[in-house]
Amino acid sequence: MSQQYPSALLEKAVGEFAKLPGIGKKTAMRLVLHLLRQDAQTVEAFGNAMITLKHEVKYCKVCHNISDTEVCKICSNPSRDSSTVCVVENIRDVMAVENTQQYKGLYHVLGGVISPMDGIGPSDLQIESLVERVKSGEVKEVILALSSTMEGDTTNFYIFRKLAPYDVKLTMIARGISIGDELEYTDEVTLGRSIVNRTVFTGTL
Amino acid sequence: MSQQYPSALLEKAVGEFAKLPGIGKKTAMRLVLHLLRQDAQTVEAFGNAMITLKHEVKYCKVCHNISDTEVCKICSNPSRDSSTVCVVENIRDVMAVENTQQYKGLYHVLGGVISPMDGIGPSDLQIESLVERVKSGEVKEVILALSSTMEGDTTNFYIFRKLAPYDVKLTMIARGISIGDELEYTDEVTLGRSIVNRTVFTGTL
Repeated sequence: MSQQYPSALLEKAVGEFAKLPGIGKKTAMRLVLHLLRQDAQTVEAFGNAMITLKHEVKYCKVCHNISDTEVCKICSNPSRDSSTVCVVENIRDVMAVENTQQYKGLYHVLGGVISPMDGIGPSDLQIESLVERVKSGEVKEVILALSSTMEGDTTNFYIFRKLAPYDVKLTMIARGISIGDELEYTDEVTLGRSIVNRTVFTGTL
Repeated sequence: MSQQYPSALLEKAVGEFAKLPGIGKKTAMRLVLHLLRQDAQTVEAFGNAMITLKHEVKYCKVCHNISDTEVCKICSNPSRDSSTVCVVENIRDVMAVENTQQYKGLYHVLGGVISPMDGIGPSDLQIESLVERVKSGEVKEVILALSSTMEGDTTNFYIFRKLAPYDVKLTMIARGISIGDELEYTDEVTLGRSIVNRTVFTGTL
């Protein structure tokens, strides 16, 4: 049964919200009515923030991360180690790695992973530009930090083959049991891998 | 630990989304990045739908429901029974009752319920205008369809006292076990009430 909206403008606004992933008609209605209770200035700030972002956003021409400038804050920071490049799937992954405060190198945002099911091939990703960065000679190590999924692994292998001709160290982020996890509840593939890839215990964690 | 956004514009857009109820920073980021992948036209349609709604929305001067016109579609529909008024809390409740297709009268949207905890008193609600509608004489029955909560009940009693001087039938929507519910799992207050307020069984449901 289709909803009867009391106003066409309301229906339009709810429809726009309901297009967002994970937001159904009921949630959309709740959000729109919430915004409607705010003053006009707040609503304009909300609507315009997204429009401005879309119009003015830039992507760093080096690492393809989102940026306000031609070259992003990370790539243009002289105190970062430009000989190390961490390959990630998307912007959120850059932020996740940055939040660890454990990494001082640069990034390369692929824009996705190879996924034939979704029609995403190597040419849809920023793989050629990664090869170019490596070819230029400054990069000494490429860290693959993709998701531990079939698509992530496929992309890892593809990049491995593409970078094989060049003199660059290729590493992959460690896979093992998460910190805080109990052994008993860890899946057997992860646990098996963490035994095979055990590291020398030096007395500190 | 505060998130490090790669772009100030991105941070602003995520911040605006995260102000919405039930949307945290992570969901906001996901939604903003989803919109960013759409074309400029889609993003503009999204942002402007909300701004247009805020600027051009009207509230029906009779029932206070949201409307594109001075008097809403329901109030101005001559085939509806203008002698019956259903009192609801908000616009969503109007839509919920309309969707049942069981009601052919008019509505009165209070804009909330009396809730001292939230600082909402009778004067913040459209109760005076309800009294005015009743005073005008056309209304024969007022149906109270508020939530079955303490605040809803308080509002019911308040309206009951306000309308007592007038010649109008005051009814309340039935409370009892939901259709499809198993007796065993119904809370005892509801079950007790549904026994006290039993109706004559005429052979049809």
